[in-house]
Amino acid sequence: MSRIDGRTADQLRPLTIDRGWSKHAEGSVLVAFGDTKVLCTASFTEGVPRWRRGSGKGWVTAEYSMLPRSTNTRGDRESVRGKIGGRTHEISRLIGRSLRSVVDTKALGENTVVLDCDVLQADGGTRTAAITGAYVALADAVAWGQERKLIKASAKPLSGSVAAVSVGIVKGVPLLDLCYEEDVVAETDMNVVCTGDGRFVEVQGTAEGEPFDRDELNALLDLAVGGCRDLEKGQREALGR
Amino acid sequence: MSRIDGRTADQLRPLTIDRGWSKHAEGSVLVAFGDTKVLCTASFTEGVPRWRRGSGKGWVTAEYSMLPRSTNTRGDRESVRGKIGGRTHEISRLIGRSLRSVVDTKALGENTVVLDCDVLQADGGTRTAAITGAYVALADAVAWGQERKLIKASAKPLSGSVAAVSVGIVKGVPLLDLCYEEDVVAETDMNVVCTGDGRFVEVQGTAEGEPFDRDELNALLDLAVGGCRDLEKGQREALGR
Amino acid sequence: MSRIDGRTADQLRPLTIDRGWSKHAEGSVLVAFGDTKVLCTASFTEGVPRWRRGSGKGWVTAEYSMLPRSTNTRGDRESVRGKIGGRTHEISRLIGRSLRSVVDTKALGENTVVLDCDVLQADGGTRTAAITGAYVALADAVAWGQERKLIKASAKPLSGSVAAVSVGIVKGVPLLDLCYEEDVVAETDMNVVCTGDGRFVEVQGTAEGEPFDRDELNALLDLAVGGCRDLEKGQREALGR
Amino acid sequence: MSRIDGRTADQLRPLTIDRGWSKHAEGSVLVAFGDTKVLCTASFTEGVPRWRRGSGKGWVTAEYSMLPRSTNTRGDRESVRGKIGGRTHEISRLIGRSLRSVVDTKALGENTVVLDCDVLQADGGTRTAAITGAYVALADAVAWGQERKLIKASAKPLSGSVAAVSVGIVKGVPLLDLCYEEDVVAETDMNVVCTGDGRFVEVQGTAEGEPFDRDELNALLDLAVGGCRDLEKGQREALGR
Amino acid sequence: MSRIDGRTADQLRPLTIDRGWSKHAEGSVLVAFGDTKVLCTASFTEGVPRWRRGSGKGWVTAEYSMLPRSTNTRGDRESVRGKIGGRTHEISRLIGRSLRSVVDTKALGENTVVLDCDVLQADGGTRTAAITGAYVALADAVAWGQERKLIKASAKPLSGSVAAVSVGIVKGVPLLDLCYEEDVVAETDMNVVCTGDGRFVEVQGTAEGEPFDRDELNALLDLAVGGCRDLEKGQREALGR
Amino acid sequence: MSRIDGRTADQLRPLTIDRGWSKHAEGSVLVAFGDTKVLCTASFTEGVPRWRRGSGKGWVTAEYSMLPRSTNTRGDRESVRGKIGGRTHEISRLIGRSLRSVVDTKALGENTVVLDCDVLQADGGTRTAAITGAYVALADAVAWGQERKLIKASAKPLSGSVAAVSVGIVKGVPLLDLCYEEDVVAETDMNVVCTGDGRFVEVQGTAEGEPFDRDELNALLDLAVGGCRDLEKGQREALGR
Repeated sequence: MSRIDGRTADQLRPLTIDRGWSKHAEGSVLVAFGDTKVLCTASFTEGVPRWRRGSGKGWVTAEYSMLPRSTNTRGDRESVRGKIGGRTHEISRLIGRSLRSVVDTKALGENTVVLDCDVLQADGGTRTAAITGAYVALADAVAWGQERKLIKASAKPLSGSVAAVSVGIVKGVPLLDLCYEEDVVAETDMNVVCTGDGRFVEVQGTAEGEPFDRDELNALLDLAVGGCRDLEKGQREALGR
Repeated sequence: MSRIDGRTADQLRPLTIDRGWSKHAEGSVLVAFGDTKVLCTASFTEGVPRWRRGSGKGWVTAEYSMLPRSTNTRGDRESVRGKIGGRTHEISRLIGRSLRSVVDTKALGENTVVLDCDVLQADGGTRTAAITGAYVALADAVAWGQERKLIKASAKPLSGSVAAVSVGIVKGVPLLDLCYEEDVVAETDMNVVCTGDGRFVEVQGTAEGEPFDRDELNALLDLAVGGCRDLEKGQREALGR
Repeated sequence: MSRIDGRTADQLRPLTIDRGWSKHAEGSVLVAFGDTKVLCTASFTEGVPRWRRGSGKGWVTAEYSMLPRSTNTRGDRESVRGKIGGRTHEISRLIGRSLRSVVDTKALGENTVVLDCDVLQADGGTRTAAITGAYVALADAVAWGQERKLIKASAKPLSGSVAAVSVGIVKGVPLLDLCYEEDVVAETDMNVVCTGDGRFVEVQGTAEGEPFDRDELNALLDLAVGGCRDLEKGQREALGR
Repeated sequence: MSRIDGRTADQLRPLTIDRGWSKHAEGSVLVAFGDTKVLCTASFTEGVPRWRRGSGKGWVTAEYSMLPRSTNTRGDRESVRGKIGGRTHEISRLIGRSLRSVVDTKALGENTVVLDCDVLQADGGTRTAAITGAYVALADAVAWGQERKLIKASAKPLSGSVAAVSVGIVKGVPLLDLCYEEDVVAETDMNVVCTGDGRFVEVQGTAEGEPFDRDELNALLDLAVGGCRDLEKGQREALGR
Repeated sequence: MSRIDGRTADQLRPLTIDRGWSKHAEGSVLVAFGDTKVLCTASFTEGVPRWRRGSGKGWVTAEYSMLPRSTNTRGDRESVRGKIGGRTHEISRLIGRSLRSVVDTKALGENTVVLDCDVLQADGGTRTAAITGAYVALADAVAWGQERKLIKASAKPLSGSVAAVSVGIVKGVPLLDLCYEEDVVAETDMNVVCTGDGRFVEVQGTAEGEPFDRDELNALLDLAVGGCRDLEKGQREALGR
Repeated sequence: MSRIDGRTADQLRPLTIDRGWSKHAEGSVLVAFGDTKVLCTASFTEGVPRWRRGSGKGWVTAEYSMLPRSTNTRGDRESVRGKIGGRTHEISRLIGRSLRSVVDTKALGENTVVLDCDVLQADGGTRTAAITGAYVALADAVAWGQERKLIKASAKPLSGSVAAVSVGIVKGVPLLDLCYEEDVVAETDMNVVCTGDGRFVEVQGTAEGEPFDRDELNALLDLAVGGCRDLEKGQREALGR
């Protein structure tokens, strides 16, 4: 079977990680997974939220949002509706949790990094692109903090790297990194977040149609682990390591 | 290793499913997973939301909430704060999705069932208790609709049953159905939703501390599948089947 | 005339006061006035709201809410609508005021008790059941505070007890403790809150249809005073005094 | 005992009812109870809210609000805070209920009258002034509708008149129509709404300090009935009857 | 051409500035531009918002609002809708900015004056009437602060006066101080805020229909400068200078 | 005097208009005024808002927003705060009004175009860049509608073009197209919107410090008219005319 855009089942879409996109932010990346484009900025500030003061630990959090016309049909702004929808909440929390899994908050010291992930154009996989790009922006913001001695030179605030990819079963076939047209017809949809050393930070699989069995789950996990390995390579290159 | 409440690693907490708790609702269950108590009511109404009218299909949705003092420390009411938090949104969506996985909306006809899952007392696993109880309330509401001929006698709106359980790794040991004290110290936390025939509807695993590897993931899935099988038995008994 | 449920005009519905319902709260009661069931929890915390700090006085407040399907037809959640309705506000304020009428805030010291009254099932008289149950939960929370020396042993934070009942005129006949079916057809509806010694804390009478005259008002007050006396006896028994 | 402003215990403050204050509204009154000034406008529109359409019946409702500096200390605007407080809700509902008690909605036909009661200056008794003034504005709006044949000439949409006054016990003495300085020190506070023929529409008595007994309640009711009789005379004069 | 109300093109509507309208506010004015009536109160408080503390400078801000039936058709309350509309925001900001242009915040010291401008009746030009009236209320509040030594006797917190007027082009003719009927048909609409010495604080011109050219702009500015001069005279008289 | 970035007083920053940026929108432009970058998308939909149905006329509106880290210091998201700020409201309204000034809504037919202007990076002049870019996106969306016959081939929905620029007085010198560093120290700040033929659609001048006189106003208008002429040329080139 050939995929809609000619990829093989285990192939990622073209990945670009454009570092230093923003003039203002301490770290910033315009990440693209094919036509999905997400602007990730990392804002470094000294100090932590009130509930964490005096703990000696830092804080990392994230906010995700889609521009109203990032999608095929215009969506209402959440600021205009006056409240954030469930999906937005869910993804913001996922991104924050994923990044914190590789952050040593003690080493970060009482500093805060906020990752803003704004989807400029959506074509499936926005949350996984956001996590993958936000990690790079975070790495830059941490380096910024160390250069300015806001973080100790000897500290290692990042214990590893983190990347994410979607996988799914389309017409019975497990596929890596679904684009929008694949995503809407997938029977099962899964987002997997892995560390650079290939372990799991988050596994979220959902049966959109038929429930899935253990073999299907295993096939999807295999694909995802491979995809995250490739993304990790892209992150490393972008960071010039 | 002995667990805090004396259970074995693969043992559920005492399960009670108290059907017909409410005088008003078309289906209602007070479900208990040990000290976790959730009131699940199913409200059956003719008609569907505007966006679904004329489709010939029904709709099933869910809302989850915690009473302010269901927890050890009182939490603010979301109605008073004027907005629903991310966690509440996330769980409401999970419950709705899980139930819809066994609903044949065509067979349901243009009817709506709303499941309200209100946590009266929380001791870990509130979302999994909610799904497990809500399925029974939903089954009763569907039966109510069939008795009143709002659903065709020959229709089978439920294609199967659904139950959910939490699993996690505590001090390196995979455990089934975590109580609150286990939950807060777990390194990895996973919620698994299964159909009565043992397939997966939803798998949500999160590393709270160290990332987890494939072997740990497999051990957790084994426990969860066994736990859901036991819960399904409890659901069947409660429904007198 | 015989009432719909066979009671005499001056008879309360069956009263149950189930103390210690909750594992977490410092005081808790599941109170039932017939089919009306309200879960009342009292949360004791050291300290007072900012505006009261340094006054040496404590604070007692209440929040009332109905579960969406506590009623015959499902109501929208106020958390989902994003605002609290007028009726909810009004009743929360009434409960708080009623309880404070028997609290000596100086004797309570700089401690706060929040009463949450959540209606699990509604059949008329939810606010009066809430007040009657909340008083017992409050008494338990105050005792809890005295055992832990957060309140002085010699202090008497409660100057008396408080209970409440509804009365109304149905087809020209004054009746005590209206159930829902009586309530919706009542020409006049009155809620009366009394202290244990038979004095008034709150009298709220409303003509739903025809205005009422002085004689009718007097007949209703007589019924209410008698009803509160009976409720106070139930409270005393529940508290084992 | 002489009152702070020299009145006798059963004496109203100077009453002025300035009809036709607004150029735009179908009925409008600037009512003053001493220094308490409330602008009451009645907006007549054809048609009724959706839930009442086709019933053949009209609708009358009210909204109460205080200008931020109508009081001694500036209060935040509810529009800025983004929600309406409990007190505002409570009073709006009271005004609406009081006016509807003298409206024959069938005779009104499918028309709506909204009463806006905005407190320009507050000195105690704002809700009772609002009810008293709003009745006159309502009468003018109904007359406006009849002149324009939106209401049948033969119909009598108003079955009577309605007025309201506060009473309270200050240092043990029952007083009529409390000004702010009396109100804040009152042990018991009561608002009474009467029809023109001296019957009760609403009785709301609250013990602010000590609970009150039956004799005190009776003394307050006597004062209130007398005060409403005087207010009704003022309303009649203002309407030129 | 004769205007709808008989004025010449460069003539203001009758101006009244009723000082000391409110019993409570430190400064207050009921200002009328013809049938447009705005109640402006100035609330003086010691201290400044948190972000300004320790700066030695004071703060002046404004809030504008319209009563629901100040207009020909009733508008919903912003408090009921739960948010402030764009127009309200815009005008509040304009009033605040205009007043601050003549305030020396250093001379004011760490004190705050809040100007509330509530439109009781609208007939065009509500924002310009609000600015013109608010200046007088502000002057009174500043004088109040100086009498009470909250502002140094030698300080001059007001560097000048400020007034505002609308101008517009109606059927090709530039007109001063548009009433509502003129405003709705104007091709160009402009609000101009001037200091007492004839300089500009704010110029806001908008083409409602055809764009306007430089000559038309100049004609409008000429009219506005003349109108502000007349208003400034009215302010001075009202202040008894 | 040489400007901070070496420009002459009457020189625009480098202008780029990147058409067709978005895969989804009917018209889209990434516009840059120096370091200020705004993504403008035009969403074309058949039909109009309810209040305009049956009029035969179309509707054009705009929404402006800043990404949280488009600025030097991160700002809170308005969706998280739950309400839109005054500045955002004001600018959204300005953009919509400016575009409508060149739209013949009758020729547009009952179609709606929504312009979303999201600031990706801010360095002064975001609103003027938004208007200038949005016009080009609008032109593309209108062309899209004509190609698909949703607008009549013979219709001319755009009566002209529109562009905008900021001007201001910095240290006494009138300057064109202020960057952020100039903007914050400007004594007077003015935004001017012109049509392609050099007439005014909107003139908004504000004294940030000292009031400005007629000569200064004239100098600023001269600069703005010249700047808009240059921008119009850039728009024409981008559209390939």
